[in-house]
Amino acid sequence: MMKVAMVMGSDSDYQVVERGEKILKDFGVDVEVHVISAHRTPDRAMEFAKTAEGKGIEVIIGAAGKAAHLPGVLAALTVLPVIGLPIKSSTMDGLDSLLSIVQMPKGIPVATVAIDGAENAALLAIQILSGKYPELRGKMKDYRKAMADEVIEKDKQFRIR
Amino acid sequence: MMKVAMVMGSDSDYQVVERGEKILKDFGVDVEVHVISAHRTPDRAMEFAKTAEGKGIEVIIGAAGKAAHLPGVLAALTVLPVIGLPIKSSTMDGLDSLLSIVQMPKGIPVATVAIDGAENAALLAIQILSGKYPELRGKMKDYRKAMADEVIEKDKQFRIR
Amino acid sequence: MMKVAMVMGSDSDYQVVERGEKILKDFGVDVEVHVISAHRTPDRAMEFAKTAEGKGIEVIIGAAGKAAHLPGVLAALTVLPVIGLPIKSSTMDGLDSLLSIVQMPKGIPVATVAIDGAENAALLAIQILSGKYPELRGKMKDYRKAMADEVIEKDKQFRIR
Amino acid sequence: MMKVAMVMGSDSDYQVVERGEKILKDFGVDVEVHVISAHRTPDRAMEFAKTAEGKGIEVIIGAAGKAAHLPGVLAALTVLPVIGLPIKSSTMDGLDSLLSIVQMPKGIPVATVAIDGAENAALLAIQILSGKYPELRGKMKDYRKAMADEVIEKDKQFRIR
Amino acid sequence: MMKVAMVMGSDSDYQVVERGEKILKDFGVDVEVHVISAHRTPDRAMEFAKTAEGKGIEVIIGAAGKAAHLPGVLAALTVLPVIGLPIKSSTMDGLDSLLSIVQMPKGIPVATVAIDGAENAALLAIQILSGKYPELRGKMKDYRKAMADEVIEKDKQFRIR
Amino acid sequence: MMKVAMVMGSDSDYQVVERGEKILKDFGVDVEVHVISAHRTPDRAMEFAKTAEGKGIEVIIGAAGKAAHLPGVLAALTVLPVIGLPIKSSTMDGLDSLLSIVQMPKGIPVATVAIDGAENAALLAIQILSGKYPELRGKMKDYRKAMADEVIEKDKQFRIR
Amino acid sequence: MMKVAMVMGSDSDYQVVERGEKILKDFGVDVEVHVISAHRTPDRAMEFAKTAEGKGIEVIIGAAGKAAHLPGVLAALTVLPVIGLPIKSSTMDGLDSLLSIVQMPKGIPVATVAIDGAENAALLAIQILSGKYPELRGKMKDYRKAMADEVIEKDKQFRIR
Amino acid sequence: MMKVAMVMGSDSDYQVVERGEKILKDFGVDVEVHVISAHRTPDRAMEFAKTAEGKGIEVIIGAAGKAAHLPGVLAALTVLPVIGLPIKSSTMDGLDSLLSIVQMPKGIPVATVAIDGAENAALLAIQILSGKYPELRGKMKDYRKAMADEVIEKDKQFRIR
Repeated sequence: MMKVAMVMGSDSDYQVVERGEKILKDFGVDVEVHVISAHRTPDRAMEFAKTAEGKGIEVIIGAAGKAAHLPGVLAALTVLPVIGLPIKSSTMDGLDSLLSIVQMPKGIPVATVAIDGAENAALLAIQILSGKYPELRGKMKDYRKAMADEVIEKDKQFRIR
Repeated sequence: MMKVAMVMGSDSDYQVVERGEKILKDFGVDVEVHVISAHRTPDRAMEFAKTAEGKGIEVIIGAAGKAAHLPGVLAALTVLPVIGLPIKSSTMDGLDSLLSIVQMPKGIPVATVAIDGAENAALLAIQILSGKYPELRGKMKDYRKAMADEVIEKDKQFRIR
Repeated sequence: MMKVAMVMGSDSDYQVVERGEKILKDFGVDVEVHVISAHRTPDRAMEFAKTAEGKGIEVIIGAAGKAAHLPGVLAALTVLPVIGLPIKSSTMDGLDSLLSIVQMPKGIPVATVAIDGAENAALLAIQILSGKYPELRGKMKDYRKAMADEVIEKDKQFRIR
Repeated sequence: MMKVAMVMGSDSDYQVVERGEKILKDFGVDVEVHVISAHRTPDRAMEFAKTAEGKGIEVIIGAAGKAAHLPGVLAALTVLPVIGLPIKSSTMDGLDSLLSIVQMPKGIPVATVAIDGAENAALLAIQILSGKYPELRGKMKDYRKAMADEVIEKDKQFRIR
Repeated sequence: MMKVAMVMGSDSDYQVVERGEKILKDFGVDVEVHVISAHRTPDRAMEFAKTAEGKGIEVIIGAAGKAAHLPGVLAALTVLPVIGLPIKSSTMDGLDSLLSIVQMPKGIPVATVAIDGAENAALLAIQILSGKYPELRGKMKDYRKAMADEVIEKDKQFRIR
Repeated sequence: MMKVAMVMGSDSDYQVVERGEKILKDFGVDVEVHVISAHRTPDRAMEFAKTAEGKGIEVIIGAAGKAAHLPGVLAALTVLPVIGLPIKSSTMDGLDSLLSIVQMPKGIPVATVAIDGAENAALLAIQILSGKYPELRGKMKDYRKAMADEVIEKDKQFRIR
Repeated sequence: MMKVAMVMGSDSDYQVVERGEKILKDFGVDVEVHVISAHRTPDRAMEFAKTAEGKGIEVIIGAAGKAAHLPGVLAALTVLPVIGLPIKSSTMDGLDSLLSIVQMPKGIPVATVAIDGAENAALLAIQILSGKYPELRGKMKDYRKAMADEVIEKDKQFRIR
Repeated sequence: MMKVAMVMGSDSDYQVVERGEKILKDFGVDVEVHVISAHRTPDRAMEFAKTAEGKGIEVIIGAAGKAAHLPGVLAALTVLPVIGLPIKSSTMDGLDSLLSIVQMPKGIPVATVAIDGAENAALLAIQILSGKYPELRGKMKDYRKAMADEVIEKDKQFRIR
């Protein structure tokens, strides 16, 4: 039905990625998780990107660290919207990942979210799907309401200390 | 029909924003351009974001510089996808704008593109709209083809020097 | 009487914020601590900012991390002085928080202190209150004197090693 | 009556500082402009800071670039609120000025505004004075209204293109 | 014979690249200059990289700016040594280009030179070729000697002022 | 036969360097590991660089941290290709090491790899040697194939969860 | 006789500073260690700097973190050479300390060493003293020789593995 | 008599360096200006550093940009105090030059001044010489007095507008 692919450059990225996978599933979105490296498996990356639309994938989330080319490489080979999720690595605090993903040159955009922001990558994918699947809008409003309620509850606890 | 709002924090941002407006129009997308400041017109920003969905807007592009809160403030008040376009200002080379937009905390994503990347903001909006309006996919493939042909033509010119 | 509101974007910020709360209380200033998110509870943020002056709040301290919009969002909706306290988060060492708070565009200032500088946020609030409540000036001079004495005592210990 | 001192480390900073001076005067605040260098005239800086309160100054704005110690040096010697205005210099795009001013250690705060943000330094001074001089609050609300109207007018012009 | 390919992501990069082309030609190395975009012509990039070795190319220089994926994308598809030349673009002073090129993850190296350092990219290519073509070593020593003589001559001019 | 020297500025760098040494040995390349400091043993650095070619060394890998001059100092005194390996030290997250190595001025290139990227330094050395020793190309293709297979295997595991 | 003052802004800096104190004592230089805060004890800082020359101090080392004004404040009040030692604090990895110390405006220099580089601050003080006390030059040559021997010994151990 | 060498990596640095040369001459210090490149003339750099002490040079100022190794390379080969003057180049705003000079590892200090801070390099050299030549202390006090007077005069002009 509604299908999102989460592609990560290394299986070690899954500890971040899975937080987004859970949200997608909670919203009833079908998720495919992949380990595909733009650098170590370039042919596989190309094949995946070229066939994604045909397999019913509607949004791709690409997660990668350091010189993080994966989201851009996928975006170059599909017209599906590609969300870039920069992963913080052992040096440079994620700045290298962020700049490598967000600073895409004119012509091929990648919709970049915060460093290690897997939840927001998933929520953005859902917002994108909502254009076609309006029922997701209602779910998102409920999700927002629950988030707000949680903040308001925490605020109350400070009131009654 | 297909409608995108481009909202900028200052009218001086229009010299960047208009490059995206042109692309949207070329793809046959209806564009509303607004000057709304998250800081100087907060009520207006709130009202705009809350009513956007009802007015048929399907994607919002928020362009802002420095402590660029506009895209995030809009995103907090609508479930429509919000694209953040960081504008380079007179200091910090756009890094402040970029971080203020992309580093959104968990719960409210902003789909961030490159600093001053108005064309990519527009192209991303089109890719998002394509889920619902599949005819845009074909146009995007044509656009990509034209871009590729232009590169290949330039490459040839170096071959025949 | 003298009242300061400390507003934080997430209850996890309280481990930093409470160091400032203690100082305010030590100076005899009434403190309200709130959890309000500019992004997850935007209506609440707006309502808080608009009603703060009427409720006798005289200075607002806004603490937030990452794309830290909270202080700026509050400042846009009140003419009370707003102090911004950037919170260091898991990436970028607080630089994103700092720039998102301090680089406010023309028209709406936020009085920014150091990253995780909750004590200084509180001391600045007291200095601001001192214009109206001159007795705080005397207390501040005593506080400064105690700080200086502590440094001088530590210096002596190096003299008599 | 209401008095603010604007102190700059070099007379070349005046091209930024004067934008704030104008705003203060427009609000009816008395302004003293000084050239005092923390490094080249340290005794003068010390004397100025120590006597400012006695001379009726209520807020100090310190503007400086590079290793910008002036606001911190003044703040260490007065309990008046000190606003720090980082000036962009010929290298480092103002980052050195910003960090030298905002990252004040525990005990002595400096209320820092954006790089070259002279208008906001002035507006912040007015907000600080408003606690004692409530008539400034009304003026500030008018100022905000005028700013908002200007944005709304510009927005309209985009509507009627 | 000895052949190097210089591949740039945009023909606007040629104003930097040509400084390297000249050096390669001066050393008697055959140079192919290409405009190939990793993002706008991904198939062409892949085909070029896969066929380069077979066409007698021995070193590839990839020049690109912003989210500069080109050198890494080429390196992933050939075992030839790939030199990365980061091009400074309109924002971020080349830091984005540099990090996108140099921070390649484990497995696929890119030999990165300074931002806009086209001459050094060429000289490095020549040093790499020298393993197989030892005559280049002699030429490089002559080149170094000439550089040193030029510096020494300039030094003398300061002696005889 | 095929010989690479790995030179590090401090023996503490060996915990990074050894990951590259292992790869070189796995490819059958002879490796000399040295501790030579550009600053503490400048004469030794000079002598090493000047005699390396004569001793049959074909590629030099220079690893250093902080103000990392070692690779550049060696490169200035030999026409052999020099690979720079920036080592992350206790402050600045490796950015100082990276810039000190990669930003070499015109005339003397250093082939820089990622911060702490010892494996890539080794793989790059092998690619450079391959021009003269074509059998290494085959080994590199096998190595790439094994890397790709590993990624594909990990991807499969996500498919069959 | 030969006397150096090491002044630190906080006693917590002593864990770095003491590494320099040890070296100075090993060279037979008399060391005074002080805790003096430019911000919390500004009068004491001023008095110390103004009287240092008269008390026979010949070089001052100022160690401080964050908005590290101490070395510059001391330098402004004495014509003795002042060495600045930036201390890494809990955020910004020492970059704030470094820029606050090294970027001194024209007229008042601070001789800045590496972040947390207490040993180099001490060695630099000794080199400065050597102009007047030539016996220190001999000791420094011995120290250099010992350092070089240690590196050479470590290098040998890699040779005989 | 009193002799300082100013050594720059490129004659283009002289436009910065000459501002320091002038100050040294004004103080009656003998100045030798040299163009010596650590990378293009390494033997000359080594010879210069090794013979400087014997030729009566008492302080060396090394000016360089980008991967600025010159001051560190000289410092490694002499026990004379070496002042590092980072030169801003066409990219990275001088940050690369600064870090390459100031972040010297343990054992070999370089006394670093601000980016393009040639005046301060000269003034620091004079302060270093003053230990041996006390008459320079008096001149420096006069220089400081003149600087202060100039600031005070400028301040007065703002008083009498």
